[in-house]
Amino acid sequence: MSLVFSKNDFISCCGSTKFAEEMVADGPFATYDEAVVAAKNIWFNRVDVNGWLEAFAAHPQIGQNLSSSAHNSSTSAQWSKGEQSTALATATDSSLQELYEWNSRYKQKFGFVFLICASGRSTPEILSELKRRFSNRPIVEFENAAEEQMKITELRLHKLFSNVTQAQS
Amino acid sequence: MSLVFSKNDFISCCGSTKFAEEMVADGPFATYDEAVVAAKNIWFNRVDVNGWLEAFAAHPQIGQNLSSSAHNSSTSAQWSKGEQSTALATATDSSLQELYEWNSRYKQKFGFVFLICASGRSTPEILSELKRRFSNRPIVEFENAAEEQMKITELRLHKLFSNVTQAQS
Repeated sequence: MSLVFSKNDFISCCGSTKFAEEMVADGPFATYDEAVVAAKNIWFNRVDVNGWLEAFAAHPQIGQNLSSSAHNSSTSAQWSKGEQSTALATATDSSLQELYEWNSRYKQKFGFVFLICASGRSTPEILSELKRRFSNRPIVEFENAAEEQMKITELRLHKLFSNVTQAQS
Repeated sequence: MSLVFSKNDFISCCGSTKFAEEMVADGPFATYDEAVVAAKNIWFNRVDVNGWLEAFAAHPQIGQNLSSSAHNSSTSAQWSKGEQSTALATATDSSLQELYEWNSRYKQKFGFVFLICASGRSTPEILSELKRRFSNRPIVEFENAAEEQMKITELRLHKLFSNVTQAQS
């Protein structure tokens, strides 16, 4: 048996149109592991740099949806919030303010939002990683962001597969 | 004595607005060598990936202005033509056609034109390099293009400095 997902399902995992289209074309996948192998191949070998920028642009600034009262109900936004639950639990007003300021500096230097797979990371950890990565050359940070995007994509593919399995059991 | 160049002079060397603005801010430069050191630092450490794409987009497809009757009189277009004089001397109708087709495939895969410092290279050499590089991952080719852009920028900075020196002598 293979699970059939739509382009929109894959867009929720990674906001590159090309990525989602190629996942549909390469699927359906019998297992989560099979989907991850395909996803890595598509993301690193077939999606071009414009597709990477498109995927990065689909993310809110980290911390943004923790402090605001935004009610974005898209799957991606809901998952983003869940992935930042540890950050939320460890955030203070002043650390969120600092995160906000460093995010702005980061975006100013690199031209895209700071991307990090936040799952299980505290706000101080995220802030420290942001400051460390800020000194990188733009091309190095572009590749770091792509690696982080892939980690986020894996987590979300896992949720896709889990949701279906739960619904079926 | 230092030579003062304008933002437009630097745009003719490299089509990134940020690059040109930072060159003006870092200048004036006493020598060509000093300008190259600044240019490398700005291009690789300060211009972000969007700026790289902006600079790449300022180039015609290689071979395009050899075969066409285009009369683009901008400094950059004129220099581009000069840099491709060896390619022109070694081009045939069929090799230009093949170059055109591979350029299209390249742009389709990577999202930007094939960039190569063409100076002194024959059309068969350029074509062979294009085919070799076509199999690269998008991020690898993005960095290759940035390296080639820097070589082109160096050649053009050299022309800028030579023109002024000639005008003064």
